[in-house]
Amino acid sequence: MRFTKMHGLGNDYVYVDCVRTRPPANPAQLSQAVSDRHFGIGADGLILICPSERADARMRMFNADGSESEMCGNGIRCVAKFVHDHGIATKSRLTIETGRGVLGLDLEVRDGKAVRVRVNMGEPILESAKIPTTLPGDPPVNAKLVAGGTTFEVTCVSMGNPHAVVYAGDEFFRTDTRDLVAELGPKLEYHEAFPRRINAHFVRVHSPSEVTMRTWERGSGITLACGTGACSVCVAGVLTGRTGRKLLAHLPGGDLELEWAEADNCVYMTGPATEVFTGEWPTA
Amino acid sequence: MRFTKMHGLGNDYVYVDCVRTRPPANPAQLSQAVSDRHFGIGADGLILICPSERADARMRMFNADGSESEMCGNGIRCVAKFVHDHGIATKSRLTIETGRGVLGLDLEVRDGKAVRVRVNMGEPILESAKIPTTLPGDPPVNAKLVAGGTTFEVTCVSMGNPHAVVYAGDEFFRTDTRDLVAELGPKLEYHEAFPRRINAHFVRVHSPSEVTMRTWERGSGITLACGTGACSVCVAGVLTGRTGRKLLAHLPGGDLELEWAEADNCVYMTGPATEVFTGEWPTA
Repeated sequence: MRFTKMHGLGNDYVYVDCVRTRPPANPAQLSQAVSDRHFGIGADGLILICPSERADARMRMFNADGSESEMCGNGIRCVAKFVHDHGIATKSRLTIETGRGVLGLDLEVRDGKAVRVRVNMGEPILESAKIPTTLPGDPPVNAKLVAGGTTFEVTCVSMGNPHAVVYAGDEFFRTDTRDLVAELGPKLEYHEAFPRRINAHFVRVHSPSEVTMRTWERGSGITLACGTGACSVCVAGVLTGRTGRKLLAHLPGGDLELEWAEADNCVYMTGPATEVFTGEWPTA
Repeated sequence: MRFTKMHGLGNDYVYVDCVRTRPPANPAQLSQAVSDRHFGIGADGLILICPSERADARMRMFNADGSESEMCGNGIRCVAKFVHDHGIATKSRLTIETGRGVLGLDLEVRDGKAVRVRVNMGEPILESAKIPTTLPGDPPVNAKLVAGGTTFEVTCVSMGNPHAVVYAGDEFFRTDTRDLVAELGPKLEYHEAFPRRINAHFVRVHSPSEVTMRTWERGSGITLACGTGACSVCVAGVLTGRTGRKLLAHLPGGDLELEWAEADNCVYMTGPATEVFTGEWPTA
């Protein structure tokens, strides 16, 4: 089975062209095998690029544990790059079918290769019951919450998955003696105010258009980059008046540009997509 | 650059044929790039298979940080499999030149492919000054040592690198609530009795010919398999009278068979070597 290893800000998947080759018989099992970082290829999961009747291609995404996910902000940028660079659809404006519907993407192309991709990540969900959280407000903005003995002010947003944004001091960005994100992230994730748990983001504001963020991802812990999380940080910045509708976010894996557009209420995320290597896995 | 990803008990490297293709210009830098598990291929390092005037091939081994190592017990088995399976030398008895001299290897071949490899790992070094350790005895056997508030009985052996073997209870093999290897391993590694630090192995004896072991590797922490460490466990078993000269060791990454031969005083290690996939890295 031919594959291509790609990453978006270090969030890395094994990509397989199922438009021109037969799809694997058991993708859930295959994802577990290829994702293992010592005995397999090593990845956060497996993404199949499939034919679509509604879009230029359809992405099916499997996590390292074999479970299927609807969408991944870092993954879909790589899907768009693959669809373009490998000639499935050589346009700079693409549509990709995901578990969350058909998304539109704009490609920045250099020397015939897509280098950055802009994704319409859809409208944020701001009703607390739908985020979901029991905190007051639609959405909760600067809501007081005590977790792990620390009092936080959290702003909650759903981008299809739930996010809590905390504006945090320098001590959350140092890891030399203790790592406060590792200590307090899980306290937020499992707090009773979040019935479906939460992704927690710790944000330092540099200016109204620039932040640095670290993420504790629900079920994954500290990660290099969370695309929907960066979108939620853009929205939370507007809701709290701390940052504007256009935002440059520095994540551990690299940078994302976000925009919560006034015109259509959608959040647009722009970031890199990188092909690392190609390979041949012995079985399908 | 063509490469082959292989592992021995989960200890995985990127292997490059430098017998038939030009070697990379800067292997230290290349090792850092390819070893990164999110932005590169993902591996414990890079191993070049080079021509040798004294043996069937020569291995050059680079760690993930770019430093060069002399030898790796799990790596050399994969080198032997590569040399055989890829037709550099199609014999079942091979010699490989390493930073520790030329080692002899015997291959177990099935359907034309090497599946297991027996390596002569050389004679153990038993003088405390050469291990090195300040503990009494040549070597120290069941020597009392207090680390992290716990009193250990340690037996020390060098296989070119220093090892401390501790026979430990079940509590060192459970990781559900706390991991004693993670807690106490570093206390042993940095104990003042070991001037060049130490690899610490926690061993449970099932019978005179079978053990399970977990390793805290110097500079790496908990690892899936340490080949020289398994050799030191075989030697320590004989020195303490706990196990015999032939030993089956269960490591987290899989099984190794060891033998401390009476005839030549050398330790022989037999274990699997696995090819995972082949790939093409864009630059050399």
